[in-house]
Amino acid sequence: MTAAEVVVFEHERLCEFSRRVFQHFGVGTAESEEAALILSQADLRGIDSHGIARLHAYSRMLNSGRINPTPEMRVVRETPGTATVDGDNGLGLVVGPWANRLALDKAESVGTGWVAVRGSNHFGIAGYYVLEALARDQLGWAMTNTTKIVAPMWGAERMLGTNPLAIAFPGLEEPPIVIDMASPAAAFGKVEMAIREGKKIPEGWAIDSSGQPTIEPEEMADGGAMLPLGSTRERGGHKGYCLGALIDILSGVLSGANWGPFTPVFTTDFEEPPRSVGVGLGHLFGAMRIDAFIEPLEFKRQIDDWIRTFRKTSPAPGTDGPLIPGDPEREAESQRKASGVPLVSAVVSDLRAVSVMTGVPFD
Amino acid sequence: MTAAEVVVFEHERLCEFSRRVFQHFGVGTAESEEAALILSQADLRGIDSHGIARLHAYSRMLNSGRINPTPEMRVVRETPGTATVDGDNGLGLVVGPWANRLALDKAESVGTGWVAVRGSNHFGIAGYYVLEALARDQLGWAMTNTTKIVAPMWGAERMLGTNPLAIAFPGLEEPPIVIDMASPAAAFGKVEMAIREGKKIPEGWAIDSSGQPTIEPEEMADGGAMLPLGSTRERGGHKGYCLGALIDILSGVLSGANWGPFTPVFTTDFEEPPRSVGVGLGHLFGAMRIDAFIEPLEFKRQIDDWIRTFRKTSPAPGTDGPLIPGDPEREAESQRKASGVPLVSAVVSDLRAVSVMTGVPFD
Repeated sequence: MTAAEVVVFEHERLCEFSRRVFQHFGVGTAESEEAALILSQADLRGIDSHGIARLHAYSRMLNSGRINPTPEMRVVRETPGTATVDGDNGLGLVVGPWANRLALDKAESVGTGWVAVRGSNHFGIAGYYVLEALARDQLGWAMTNTTKIVAPMWGAERMLGTNPLAIAFPGLEEPPIVIDMASPAAAFGKVEMAIREGKKIPEGWAIDSSGQPTIEPEEMADGGAMLPLGSTRERGGHKGYCLGALIDILSGVLSGANWGPFTPVFTTDFEEPPRSVGVGLGHLFGAMRIDAFIEPLEFKRQIDDWIRTFRKTSPAPGTDGPLIPGDPEREAESQRKASGVPLVSAVVSDLRAVSVMTGVPFD
Repeated sequence: MTAAEVVVFEHERLCEFSRRVFQHFGVGTAESEEAALILSQADLRGIDSHGIARLHAYSRMLNSGRINPTPEMRVVRETPGTATVDGDNGLGLVVGPWANRLALDKAESVGTGWVAVRGSNHFGIAGYYVLEALARDQLGWAMTNTTKIVAPMWGAERMLGTNPLAIAFPGLEEPPIVIDMASPAAAFGKVEMAIREGKKIPEGWAIDSSGQPTIEPEEMADGGAMLPLGSTRERGGHKGYCLGALIDILSGVLSGANWGPFTPVFTTDFEEPPRSVGVGLGHLFGAMRIDAFIEPLEFKRQIDDWIRTFRKTSPAPGTDGPLIPGDPEREAESQRKASGVPLVSAVVSDLRAVSVMTGVPFD
C-alpha cells in the first residue's frame, strides 16, 4: 500500500473510534461524543485535514499530558454581551463548543454575544460552530489562531497560522451559505500532498527558507512558509496578511492567549514556540440573533434570492459558473454519507498507531 | 494640464470647501463638518479615491435629489446589544457616523454593540469609523456593500462591490494597527489610472466582458469585472469571493438594504440596478469594549509586542520586511499634513464643476 492509496470507511465507524479514543484519555462522555462529532463532520464535509486525520496528533498531545482531558473551563471576565473564557488547556474540541454555546446564550439575552477564549487548543473545523448557531436562528462567527506556517507579506519566515474564519447564513428553501475559509492562498495540506505525489506546487503558494517564491513543495516544507491570500503585493497579498493578522489579534491578543509566532503547536512534531506571551491558543466566537436585526423569515427569503441570483451569474469560460459557499462541502457530505469516507494510507497507519497506543480496536 | 498632472492643496482648504458644499445642499452644520472631515481623512491618509475626489459624485447625487440632505435616521429594531437603523436615504457620511456611535454606545452598556444600516449611501473610508472606536477604548468594525464591480470566482460579470472591511487595534507606545481593506485583488481606481497612463494592468486583477482574464484596462472598464482577492481558484480566489459575499450579506441582507448586483450606484454615471430588493445601501458597524474582554493596558502592551515582533520578521529578498497595517496611511498623513494633498487635474476640474454648481468658491 503506497502513501497515496485510499481506503474507504463508514463515517459512523470512524466517529465511534474517535469517541472511544477520547474517552480512553479520560475526556468526559458527552465531551468525547461532541469532539468525535466535530472530527466526523470535517470528514463528511470533505475537509480531510481537520477530521480523523488529526486524531493521531490529539492522541499524542493527550498521551504526553500536553492537553488536559478534564478541563475546568471558567469565565474570567464578563458583561451581558461578552465573556472571556479560560479553557484550562483542554481539547479545543471541548473548550470550543462550551464557549460557543456561551456566545449563543448571550445573544439570546442581549441580541449578540462575543466570547474570546484562551488556554485552548486546536478546535477542529470552524464551520462546526457556525452550524450550531444556525440551529438556533443565529448568525455565528468562529475564528481561531493556529501554529505558525504563513509569512506576512514581504516577510521571509513563518509568523502567522492559517487562521480560519467561518460564518453561516440560513436560507428558507435553499441550503445555508456556509463560509469556512483559512487566510493563506492555499492549505499546507496541499503542499504535503504534492510532496507525496512528487508534484510541483503552483506559483503564489509558498516561499522557501530564504523568502524566495518556490514551486518545489519540499523547499516550502523545509523551513519555508505559505503565502497569504493574494500571494504578491501586486495582487493584494497585503490584504491576506491583514486578514490573518486580524484573526490572530482577535483570537490571541483579545483573549490573553498566545499570538502570531508564539501560538502553541498542535502536534508534538513541531518545535515549541520560542517564548510564551499568553495562555494557550485562542479563539473568538460571535453570535447574532437574526431577529435582533430583521424578521428571520424575510432574511431567509432574501438569502434564497441571493443564492439563486448568484447561481445565475454568467459563467466564466470553461466553468459552470460560481459556486455558493458551502456547495463543495454539502456535495462531499451527501456522497460520503452514502459511500463512506476515503482515508489515505498514511492516515490509516496513524489510526492503527492510535489503536496500539490506546487499546481501542480500529480494524 | 494633462489628466495626470498634479496640483497640491492644503488639506484644511479642501476640507473647508467640502464642508461648504455639503451645507449648500442643505446638510446640517455639524453633519457637514463631519462629512467633510471623513473625506479629508481619506485625502490625508492617501486613500485618494475616497476623499474629495468623491465630492463631485456626492454633489450630483444631492443636486438631483437622489440623496436626502436632511435624513431622519431612525432605529427600526433594537435589543440591548444590537440595532437596525434606517438612514432615510441620507449621505453615508451622515448616516454612518450616527449608526457607528449607536454601536459604540451599546457596547458601553452591554460590552458589545452591532448596528446594521439600510437606506444609506456611500459612507467614505471604513477606517474613519474604527478610529472613532479607538478614541473610546473600543475595537470597532466597519463594513459596507458598494456598487457592483467584482465578479464572483468563476463568474463572468459584476455581482459584488469592493465591499471593504475595517478594524483597528490600539497600541500603548506604538501607533494603532489599522486594517482597512477592500475585498478584490486590486482597486478599480488602479484600472482607471492605467487607462489614463496608457499602461497594461497585471494578470490577476480583471476579466473582460466575456469573462476571460485580461491585462488591458480598457477591456475591464468596458463591461468586464475586477477579480476577488486570490484572483484564480488555484490561488484561493474563492476565499476572496467568500469575503466579499459575507460583507455583502452582513451589510445588505441583515439590514434589509439592497445587496449584490442590486446595491445602488454611488454616482449618476453608473446605470441603476435592474431591480430593488431592499432599501438603499447597507453597512454593519460593530463595537467591542476592550475592557469587556481584557485589561486595556495589558491589551495595548501586547499590541506593542505584536507590532515589534512583526517588524522584526526577516525580510523577503528585495524588501524592507513586512509593514504593519496602517503604516502606509500614517506615512501619507504625516507627509500630507506638512506639504499638502496632491490632486490630479481630473479631480481639480471636477471640483471646479462643483464650485460652479454650488457657487462655493474653489480657487
